[in-house]
Amino acid sequence: MSKSYRVAILGATGAVGTELLELLESRNFPIADLKLLASQRSAGKTLKFKGENLLIEAVSDRSFENVDIVLASAGGGTSKRWAGVAVEKGAVVIDNSSAFRMNQEVPLVVPEVNPQAAASHKGIIANPNCTTILMTLAVWPLHQVKAVKRIVAATYQSASGAGAKAMEEVKTQTSAILQGQSPVAEVLPYPLAFNLFPHNSPMTDVGYCEEELKMVNETRKIFGSQEIRITATCVRVPVLRAHSEAINLEFETPFDPDEARAILSHSPGVKLVEDWQANYFPMPIEASGRDEVLVGRIRQDISHPCGLELWLCGDQIRKGAALNAVQIAELLIEKNWLSH
Amino acid sequence: MSKSYRVAILGATGAVGTELLELLESRNFPIADLKLLASQRSAGKTLKFKGENLLIEAVSDRSFENVDIVLASAGGGTSKRWAGVAVEKGAVVIDNSSAFRMNQEVPLVVPEVNPQAAASHKGIIANPNCTTILMTLAVWPLHQVKAVKRIVAATYQSASGAGAKAMEEVKTQTSAILQGQSPVAEVLPYPLAFNLFPHNSPMTDVGYCEEELKMVNETRKIFGSQEIRITATCVRVPVLRAHSEAINLEFETPFDPDEARAILSHSPGVKLVEDWQANYFPMPIEASGRDEVLVGRIRQDISHPCGLELWLCGDQIRKGAALNAVQIAELLIEKNWLSH
Repeated sequence: MSKSYRVAILGATGAVGTELLELLESRNFPIADLKLLASQRSAGKTLKFKGENLLIEAVSDRSFENVDIVLASAGGGTSKRWAGVAVEKGAVVIDNSSAFRMNQEVPLVVPEVNPQAAASHKGIIANPNCTTILMTLAVWPLHQVKAVKRIVAATYQSASGAGAKAMEEVKTQTSAILQGQSPVAEVLPYPLAFNLFPHNSPMTDVGYCEEELKMVNETRKIFGSQEIRITATCVRVPVLRAHSEAINLEFETPFDPDEARAILSHSPGVKLVEDWQANYFPMPIEASGRDEVLVGRIRQDISHPCGLELWLCGDQIRKGAALNAVQIAELLIEKNWLSH
Repeated sequence: MSKSYRVAILGATGAVGTELLELLESRNFPIADLKLLASQRSAGKTLKFKGENLLIEAVSDRSFENVDIVLASAGGGTSKRWAGVAVEKGAVVIDNSSAFRMNQEVPLVVPEVNPQAAASHKGIIANPNCTTILMTLAVWPLHQVKAVKRIVAATYQSASGAGAKAMEEVKTQTSAILQGQSPVAEVLPYPLAFNLFPHNSPMTDVGYCEEELKMVNETRKIFGSQEIRITATCVRVPVLRAHSEAINLEFETPFDPDEARAILSHSPGVKLVEDWQANYFPMPIEASGRDEVLVGRIRQDISHPCGLELWLCGDQIRKGAALNAVQIAELLIEKNWLSH
């Protein structure tokens, strides 16, 4: 019998936490013991795993004893508070928050893109931002053939990026509007139903919100290249759980769209979705619940001889968060990289 | 008493037609006689104008006798069929369809941008595509100061662009989904509720849909510059009636965002909407029903020294169609350019 591992989910009750639970079960992750950790508020509740009701524990210093892998998705503050404790007790922490992503000692990993970066971890591996993960899956295989010089991205981000409560809020707002009432915004800053707005992450002093700078800085770190120039406009749209991105790429020399298509048709984690006759391309409702990032509308940019346009949709909770984290855990096991 | 004019609306019952009627009334357009023209199907119905019920007539050869101005918004086929007839009877046709826009003999006019182009009409003046109108309003004032070299645009287009029926369809689909039913798509090719997809206009052989090429070609014609390089990704989103656009501009030399802000804060047809502290920028629900295009998030593009990013929202039916057409009519009257 192959080895199995003691896993803890920190932030088990959130949108990403429940998806982690589902993925550990459906992917038959080799689990010896599974601990569900959350705030005091959720302690005592249960969540189903392989037909059993698992009790949620309030996280404490003792939670990380006898744990091999911690999958953390409870926000930056919680990760900063507990990651060090878990590492000290011998666990590897795969962290979904932005707390450690730009820390030079912490690898930032998309398993299909830079798996080798995970080898040098010192106990913490960071899971990139959802929009970044989705974009790197489509751009990295092209970047391997011809270096990308510049990326101009515009995103269409679903409510799930702001958590399960935001998803519920959009439904409630939508229902209110359809009944002739005014929508109420409590989780998100403005009504998202039948509306959209620039991403509500904190604004930085260069005029980019944090979400946009994540796409810039995390992509550079994952690609191991500070030369790539990236700009992004991140926008929240009234979609429930998959993000979409319009991506304009500029290379040193022209990139034949047919070659790009051929490359992306067999790239890991990518599914090419293009029916030009039927005007059928990736859509968030079809990306929802899927592992692959759907990529299509690959075309020569008519404004630039070395430009290429593409369009993608990916499940924000799945590949954009939970699945990527589980894949990192699987990679560590496969490569025997758990120790630190 | 100042002069008044005999006006006909061709396609009076559509989303743009009813908006035209509202604008002629609210702007107190100098009307001597108003004729509502539509297909045989709508003939005999009535529409309200200044408290009176006006009878809708089926369009025929005789409809354009004794008419000074025709505001046409019944689609390209109808415009091709009737514009020549109307012009022959002495009317000026302001056409909302794409039928004549790229015809070299037909001026393509945004009154705030290229009013002088209207002077040379030969009976027909074309109203540009909605996304183009909105973009030119924000970009033209900057282009006057420093020539734009390249534009990379991504759009977030509302259901109204596909007409009143598409707006109804999105509401019906949304309601179905909230009740746990499957959405039905009949007007648009795919469900738009809680979803989005690349614009459903016909695909061309360069991989751009017609909507995208309109942004490219019409902007060049309106700006009177074939040098500007433009690329666009057009996307339909589940918003009811205002379009949004993420616009990346490249100039020959750097463009100070503060200078751009100062310019756009007093540009005609533009309202600057920017509260950086509150992360408050243009939103389609706030652009709906307004005359101005809301522009904001003006920032230095960190990926290019001569790049500038901006974000805009504009009412697709109003400034994107009906209002622009009425403004063209007002321009012709003001300048005494009605004769041909």
